Amino acid sequence: MRAARLADVDGLLVTHLPDIRYLCGFTGSSGALVVAGGRAVLFTDGRYTEQAQEEASGTRVVIAKGSALAAACAWMDGAGVERCGFDPAHTTVTALLAMRKAVSAGRRRSLFQPLEELVSGLREVKDDEEIGVMREAARMGCALFEGVLAEVTPAMTEVAVAVELERRARLAGAERMSFETIVAGAERSALPHARVSRARLPRRGFVTLDFGVVLGGYCSDMTRTVHFGRPSAEARAVYDSVLEAQMSAVARVAPGVRAEEIDEAARGVLRRAKLDGYFTHSTGHGVGLEIHEQPRIGAKQRQELRPGMIITIEPGAYLAGRFGVRIEDMVLVTAKGCEVLTPSTKAWLEL
Amino acid sequence: MRAARLADVDGLLVTHLPDIRYLCGFTGSSGALVVAGGRAVLFTDGRYTEQAQEEASGTRVVIAKGSALAAACAWMDGAGVERCGFDPAHTTVTALLAMRKAVSAGRRRSLFQPLEELVSGLREVKDDEEIGVMREAARMGCALFEGVLAEVTPAMTEVAVAVELERRARLAGAERMSFETIVAGAERSALPHARVSRARLPRRGFVTLDFGVVLGGYCSDMTRTVHFGRPSAEARAVYDSVLEAQMSAVARVAPGVRAEEIDEAARGVLRRAKLDGYFTHSTGHGVGLEIHEQPRIGAKQRQELRPGMIITIEPGAYLAGRFGVRIEDMVLVTAKGCEVLTPSTKAWLEL
Repeated sequence: MRAARLADVDGLLVTHLPDIRYLCGFTGSSGALVVAGGRAVLFTDGRYTEQAQEEASGTRVVIAKGSALAAACAWMDGAGVERCGFDPAHTTVTALLAMRKAVSAGRRRSLFQPLEELVSGLREVKDDEEIGVMREAARMGCALFEGVLAEVTPAMTEVAVAVELERRARLAGAERMSFETIVAGAERSALPHARVSRARLPRRGFVTLDFGVVLGGYCSDMTRTVHFGRPSAEARAVYDSVLEAQMSAVARVAPGVRAEEIDEAARGVLRRAKLDGYFTHSTGHGVGLEIHEQPRIGAKQRQELRPGMIITIEPGAYLAGRFGVRIEDMVLVTAKGCEVLTPSTKAWLEL
Repeated sequence: MRAARLADVDGLLVTHLPDIRYLCGFTGSSGALVVAGGRAVLFTDGRYTEQAQEEASGTRVVIAKGSALAAACAWMDGAGVERCGFDPAHTTVTALLAMRKAVSAGRRRSLFQPLEELVSGLREVKDDEEIGVMREAARMGCALFEGVLAEVTPAMTEVAVAVELERRARLAGAERMSFETIVAGAERSALPHARVSRARLPRRGFVTLDFGVVLGGYCSDMTRTVHFGRPSAEARAVYDSVLEAQMSAVARVAPGVRAEEIDEAARGVLRRAKLDGYFTHSTGHGVGLEIHEQPRIGAKQRQELRPGMIITIEPGAYLAGRFGVRIEDMVLVTAKGCEVLTPSTKAWLEL
């Protein structure tokens, strides 16, 4: 099965729910969107009759009796589509077998063609409305960080801080958190994907907060690392290097710049500080309806940034068993450069 | 591509993370487990070197430089596996293409065989350790429900109730909620999958709470519907019918009983009350490392219950635009009958 290109197909089958939401507005948990012959048809089931008509108001809605996916495939078959692109990264083998079973025997082998990154490519660049929502989500994140920071003490456990952050987020109107909140104190700050524990925050040491909210379906994402008590010279030096790396990468963000150049801007600073061996992940990622989207901001990523992309810039340094620092902003690529959407201070914070 | 049976293969590739956790204990976010030639090998990446060796102590661990999946496939190819079963329901087409690319050209077409419900079938029946953890998770759910109920007033919004429940859950030691908490008041109780809103609870009307916690990786799941103020005769009658349906279904749970019989026990009660048209989903589902597992408890599900299965029994009646009632327990199938793991009262509660 070879990957097709858009020019090779006369129909599209969209099944990944964030893609469906992006294309027609429908937010239900089950559906299949078909684009063929110049029109789009959304297939869903009886649970979503009213919701689909309301949300996907510009799209014809068909309520399937059985599987929405099978109904969508049968419709395409009947409409005479010859080659239908589907998203192989979000289609299971079971689903593909069901898709083939739903169409006439003669088309079974030829109808469905894998077409990579079609909708995810469209979703990379945000329009003004999306940027507005995401700016608001990012601002909410900053307000939450600042509000919680004012109340955090070493007497609190990591989980208590996370709970307080999430409580405030929900009461402020967030639909949910965009991923599992990270609150990682002391030596746990050296774990890039630490799960919240019942450990108390350190009397002397780093605490990393990495979290995001979902607003209008769109995710925010930010990280700040603060310090309780007086730091060692080394801790302070590592913080300063990560901050310099982060700001160097942000300063590099502009249309036409390749993702790998942004990554290298951060990595180079850490290399000069002999900390690149402790920076064990890539520099960032696109963010939008999903927390991780295109583009990837990492080594060997040759994709060029375009205005309207919203990416994270989040270098870190992780000294296993000792401490770690990560600083992360959401950054909008603008016509001439960039705008940081998460303006909470990144200056050294000693609590 | 035809579905294979276990006897048809000489190797297994397990990639669904809950299945990997079930089989070898590893809880990381990336890995592939191979079973062939009488031994199991876990492939993961450098982020999980220590964690994998600690958690999957009985399993050989290989740290892949690149993709763990590709490394697992290449290893199997080298070990001479001829036909390897994989889980088509949790393998994307992109992953299958990558799996094929990782093996020698001669094996590309024949090596990977879809093998349905292999590990999910094993996971249906819980052992004593799993039952112990799930009993504890279910008890925590009941304690949370009772604690929150004591504080709920019509002045609170749905989201405030959900936040309070989740705050208590996390502080009590839950790793996370097992799904998006439902708090649905007044006419919103008629939506089986209502999302929490900012609406205040009704001064007079139903409130449905449907939620679960994760403890030791295992999910709990329970629903109770309570009433603020005096009910109409109709509301009270609907509640009584749903409760009777729920208790009839629970009473029917025993080894050897077919899932469809449990479903019919609930549906029959609602049919006699002329409410079956308002019961728009199936009666329940297995629960464990995932919130929805095998078996399904619905019409036409001929599978027989076995001791050690843990299922939900959750009939409901939803009168669109007016009100709804759902009552849900977690039930363990025992050697002779069943044990309800969620003992919070189901009696009419008027607040």
